[in-house]
Amino acid sequence: MADAGPPWRVALLVAYDGTEFAGFQSQVNGRAVQDVLEAALADLYGTTLRVRAASRTDAGVHAVGQVASVDLGDAARYARIPLERLPLALDGRLPADVRVLAARAAGPGFDPRRAASKTYRYRLLARPAPCPLRRRFVWHVGGRLDVEAMATAAEAVIGRHDFSAFAAAGASGASRVREVRALRVRAAADDEVHVDVEADGFLYRMVRNLVGTLVEIGRGRRAASDMASILASRRRALAGATAPPQGLCLMEVRYADDPGAAWVRAPAASSR
Amino acid sequence: MADAGPPWRVALLVAYDGTEFAGFQSQVNGRAVQDVLEAALADLYGTTLRVRAASRTDAGVHAVGQVASVDLGDAARYARIPLERLPLALDGRLPADVRVLAARAAGPGFDPRRAASKTYRYRLLARPAPCPLRRRFVWHVGGRLDVEAMATAAEAVIGRHDFSAFAAAGASGASRVREVRALRVRAAADDEVHVDVEADGFLYRMVRNLVGTLVEIGRGRRAASDMASILASRRRALAGATAPPQGLCLMEVRYADDPGAAWVRAPAASSR
Repeated sequence: MADAGPPWRVALLVAYDGTEFAGFQSQVNGRAVQDVLEAALADLYGTTLRVRAASRTDAGVHAVGQVASVDLGDAARYARIPLERLPLALDGRLPADVRVLAARAAGPGFDPRRAASKTYRYRLLARPAPCPLRRRFVWHVGGRLDVEAMATAAEAVIGRHDFSAFAAAGASGASRVREVRALRVRAAADDEVHVDVEADGFLYRMVRNLVGTLVEIGRGRRAASDMASILASRRRALAGATAPPQGLCLMEVRYADDPGAAWVRAPAASSR
Repeated sequence: MADAGPPWRVALLVAYDGTEFAGFQSQVNGRAVQDVLEAALADLYGTTLRVRAASRTDAGVHAVGQVASVDLGDAARYARIPLERLPLALDGRLPADVRVLAARAAGPGFDPRRAASKTYRYRLLARPAPCPLRRRFVWHVGGRLDVEAMATAAEAVIGRHDFSAFAAAGASGASRVREVRALRVRAAADDEVHVDVEADGFLYRMVRNLVGTLVEIGRGRRAASDMASILASRRRALAGATAPPQGLCLMEVRYADDPGAAWVRAPAASSR
């Protein structure tokens, strides 16, 4: 492109039902959210565009506040569709399980992966009877959970720690230190228990491993006080099993250089 | 069967995600909840058994409190599986979008269609942004709704009336008089508005026609005071359009001769 100027970077707020996806990121096998977003962008702009996202969610994991970025190339191409109309233009080209909730201009240095914090919610269905309407969105743990014990255990995790005990076995990478800013366990409507966790970053499967351990405490199979010693041990083998993916949802991503007020359409503060 | 005694009638509390069903009742074309229930019963008991249900829900309509009955034939067959284990035994033979929440013995005169009252919930998503996670369970009406105007309009419908104005065009049947015992419109979590309606019975598509009219009032396209005159007119043409099926869920069915306390497993009081 002879007239290509600096790339016009756009940030997208994306929501998806992860049930029928192999995760956000493109891969050799399986349907990825990235693929359907890039296909919609290619159809709209007539050229191949790469999407980057704040979080590579796993297969079956949902999002109501995923943030993705795309460089639209030259200004002329960018100007064809006003930014406030981009969500609807993309939605018309996306499958029903993915929606673009908002779009805004982002600075050239914006990288969605450099988030100041991410917030996830994990939904547990804590009663004997299953619920077929929620089967894609909750982990049905059967009987009741001791929410108070879970909340007490959660307190031990808040703060800056080495989270090796809750990292997926075999996970590589330099530092395992992350700062969990909030970890709240509470009884919610319709027999659900919600675990909301905010951190400056997460190790692979960290939320699901934390939830798996909290559920064992909620079932009375471990003491709430075990949480601190599991964390201190840094040994994955001491923590609980990994919670299944369908209960997990990426709720919100925040950026230090961005007060989050610039979304053309209001972000969706939704749990479902 | 030489030793067939009086039939053992069992009542089942059934929940289903109606998205991939053509409705409860068996029909020539399409997958019906009745079919998958009867197939599970046939597999379990080795004989063809007919299921009757309180409500013939339409394609795409959900249930968390459907009541069905089945005659299990002779006592020996009935005794093979203890009643409290019947839900799990059936769930293992049902697709993931149908679950039997509870089972109990019913008197020989029990007819699930002779309900004292039924309660439905209709879920509206009242914000500009769609939610792909809830697309199967809400009607996305776009912008905000005037819940107060809708609640005021709803009051006009409560009581014993001829509901011809809200019956599907071409609906036959003798009396169009029904008693609406409760009709509540309220703002719910996550940008939803819920319409809960309880009546001694419903005309075909009555809830969806009531909701379609209430949404027009909530959008400011009609006055709340119009509701009373639409009802009094008995003319379907004056009411609003039929709301789409996916927002509707059968919540509960009550029987006069049954305090509802006999469910082997606790009924699920769930909205999702």
